[in-house]
Amino acid sequence: MRGKLIVFEGIEGSGKTTQIQYLRQWLDQTFVNGKPADYPTGVIVTRQPGGTSIGQKIRQVLLQPATGTEILTSTSELLLYAADRAQHVERILKPALETGHLVLCDRYTASTVAYQGYGRQLDRTLIKTLNTLATGGLASDLTLWLKLDVATGLKRIAGRGQADRIEQASIDFHRRVHEGFAAQAKGQDRFITVDGSLDQERVAEQIQAVVSTYLQQWYDL
Amino acid sequence: MRGKLIVFEGIEGSGKTTQIQYLRQWLDQTFVNGKPADYPTGVIVTRQPGGTSIGQKIRQVLLQPATGTEILTSTSELLLYAADRAQHVERILKPALETGHLVLCDRYTASTVAYQGYGRQLDRTLIKTLNTLATGGLASDLTLWLKLDVATGLKRIAGRGQADRIEQASIDFHRRVHEGFAAQAKGQDRFITVDGSLDQERVAEQIQAVVSTYLQQWYDL
Repeated sequence: MRGKLIVFEGIEGSGKTTQIQYLRQWLDQTFVNGKPADYPTGVIVTRQPGGTSIGQKIRQVLLQPATGTEILTSTSELLLYAADRAQHVERILKPALETGHLVLCDRYTASTVAYQGYGRQLDRTLIKTLNTLATGGLASDLTLWLKLDVATGLKRIAGRGQADRIEQASIDFHRRVHEGFAAQAKGQDRFITVDGSLDQERVAEQIQAVVSTYLQQWYDL
Repeated sequence: MRGKLIVFEGIEGSGKTTQIQYLRQWLDQTFVNGKPADYPTGVIVTRQPGGTSIGQKIRQVLLQPATGTEILTSTSELLLYAADRAQHVERILKPALETGHLVLCDRYTASTVAYQGYGRQLDRTLIKTLNTLATGGLASDLTLWLKLDVATGLKRIAGRGQADRIEQASIDFHRRVHEGFAAQAKGQDRFITVDGSLDQERVAEQIQAVVSTYLQQWYDL
């Protein structure tokens, strides 16, 4: 399949959104000259949660700070992420990949393992089951983990205004999430660690170097 | 535990909402004279989906007719119902039961078996797993199935204005849902079939007769 799924993962403040934009620009330049039949059809940028119109509504429920006394339970949160993912895989990712697009996705299954499995300490076998259900078995072709220490990440987002519900969670929670990404980076192929503590341009260069090696495999570039 | 969960189930148009109001009034009268310590604290009426403020938002996603080209996938639908249930059990049902209330709930796990398992034909083992996850094992003490043939149910709701997404589904879908309730009524204790085709008052009398026998067991009434 010409279509490939590249996922960006990391804690809040790790620079995912910025780096996705850098990579998109670089890919657009890479593919600007000539369009051999085995090249990707185009580049699509999307995200979980909130990559569909239904997912946008789910995202609002997930990320708004607690109002009044009703706090979202960990189990309900896990199921809402899975519902968003099921919709997004079926309506966005699969059609995009089947039509040969290179898809850059802000968060995917690894975030659920890190946040709900390690962070909220929910049962990891259950999370695996829900990830498989929600994705229908669709795995990423490459996952880039923007590794950044928790204190730096939280400092970076502190300047952005009101923190959302996830960002407000305790520092211990974020440390466990970080461990969750680290554990996955150790155990999996195609799960690459990028030093997210450097300047944006240096991080972008690292990512381009990694993606280049994969593009060579995928498209004989 | 003094608290007890009574669930109303049935296809659209089967009269659940009306009958819950009848039963609530009848229960309020039943318990009006004297309040022995082992009587219920009070009667609470609630529903799934939409029995919490977070659930209300989930309910909006679930029941609004498809807008544009994005249709909710069956898997995402299943997960949204589970998310609503997890939130509702933890925030409403458990606290209400623990404080000794008699809870009347419009739909519970049996609806997911009937609609998603039989209607949408999703894997029933998976549905069982999700129901257990969402309820934390909390089962109803009594389920009342308002049995009504599909044609009559659809005729009743036709007068209510714009049909929601579930109601718009095909007649074959609703027939399978009906079978799903019938199968559960056969196989389970405390899952009682009520003839929903009669006049509202006759249906209310049947329900009162059934509930009376359970109240005797529960409260020595």
